[in-house]
Amino acid sequence: MKKSSTLDTRAKEKYMLLALEQAKKAQAIGEVPIGAVVILDGEVIGCGYNRREADQDATAHAEMLAIREACQNVDSWRLERSQLFVTLEPCPMCSGAMQLARVEEVYFGAYDPKGGAAGSLLTILTDERFNHWSYVEGGILQGDCSQILTDFFRELRAKRKAEKKLRQRTSEAEFE
Amino acid sequence: MKKSSTLDTRAKEKYMLLALEQAKKAQAIGEVPIGAVVILDGEVIGCGYNRREADQDATAHAEMLAIREACQNVDSWRLERSQLFVTLEPCPMCSGAMQLARVEEVYFGAYDPKGGAAGSLLTILTDERFNHWSYVEGGILQGDCSQILTDFFRELRAKRKAEKKLRQRTSEAEFE
Repeated sequence: MKKSSTLDTRAKEKYMLLALEQAKKAQAIGEVPIGAVVILDGEVIGCGYNRREADQDATAHAEMLAIREACQNVDSWRLERSQLFVTLEPCPMCSGAMQLARVEEVYFGAYDPKGGAAGSLLTILTDERFNHWSYVEGGILQGDCSQILTDFFRELRAKRKAEKKLRQRTSEAEFE
Repeated sequence: MKKSSTLDTRAKEKYMLLALEQAKKAQAIGEVPIGAVVILDGEVIGCGYNRREADQDATAHAEMLAIREACQNVDSWRLERSQLFVTLEPCPMCSGAMQLARVEEVYFGAYDPKGGAAGSLLTILTDERFNHWSYVEGGILQGDCSQILTDFFRELRAKRKAEKKLRQRTSEAEFE
């Protein structure tokens, strides 16, 4: 059964901007900038940003934190009729969590050809062999969602290069 | 690259018994009885049992709770060299979490032909397109791991049938 979107372009972009705001919170603490929000009846019921390093928790992805907050807020593990917005295509874990929580519509920004499970490497959310599947749409504010990641990794590489140079100079100085 | 097990049959069964003990904790609170443990250097570093209904959290699977506890205990999101034991074949979310946490070896008890992502419907943990993959082995103490689930669902059906009968009697009595 093919599912369809209940949102127009304006609404999709509005909610993706909220996910981007979450991504900026991750960026501010030096985490890979990925953010997510869960929407129900036009209201934000959960939001989250990547905290893997801060929490030293492999499961602390933006989507997982947003889903857990949403479950808490509606006091139910079922997020039926909800929409989830995330700035990067979800990985297998997060796609699986959306499936378990029965999220109705999933929107992501940038594609993740190396790890995406919502179309790129796997298609968990639209696999009808499972007992729930979702409407999935990628590429919402794709430029902004990609840019924040590109900038982050460029800065990270520059920082590492500078650190390496500093280490080399320090070690050369020891021999002088 | 094919991965191999570092454990003998006796060790595998010993750790699966610990996962079964966790499953019994879920059973005791009326949850679908699934349990998991994470082992590092022969020590239990995380354990968990299904708490979806108790916590009203779609992500509160046994494996997720065990992984999160293990990350906390070793103060790292990387669970390299670890083994995870779970009584039922993991779903996409939990398989994805093991992949992200870099669990080295995954052992499960009963197969889940309707939702398993470690061989049955998907093969997330051995998919070499991702940047981590694991050794996976199913069927450890399969009889015990299946039986606890079969018993749970049989009791659940009997309970629901009895409740339905009671409701029918009550509603008939109202008309008498």
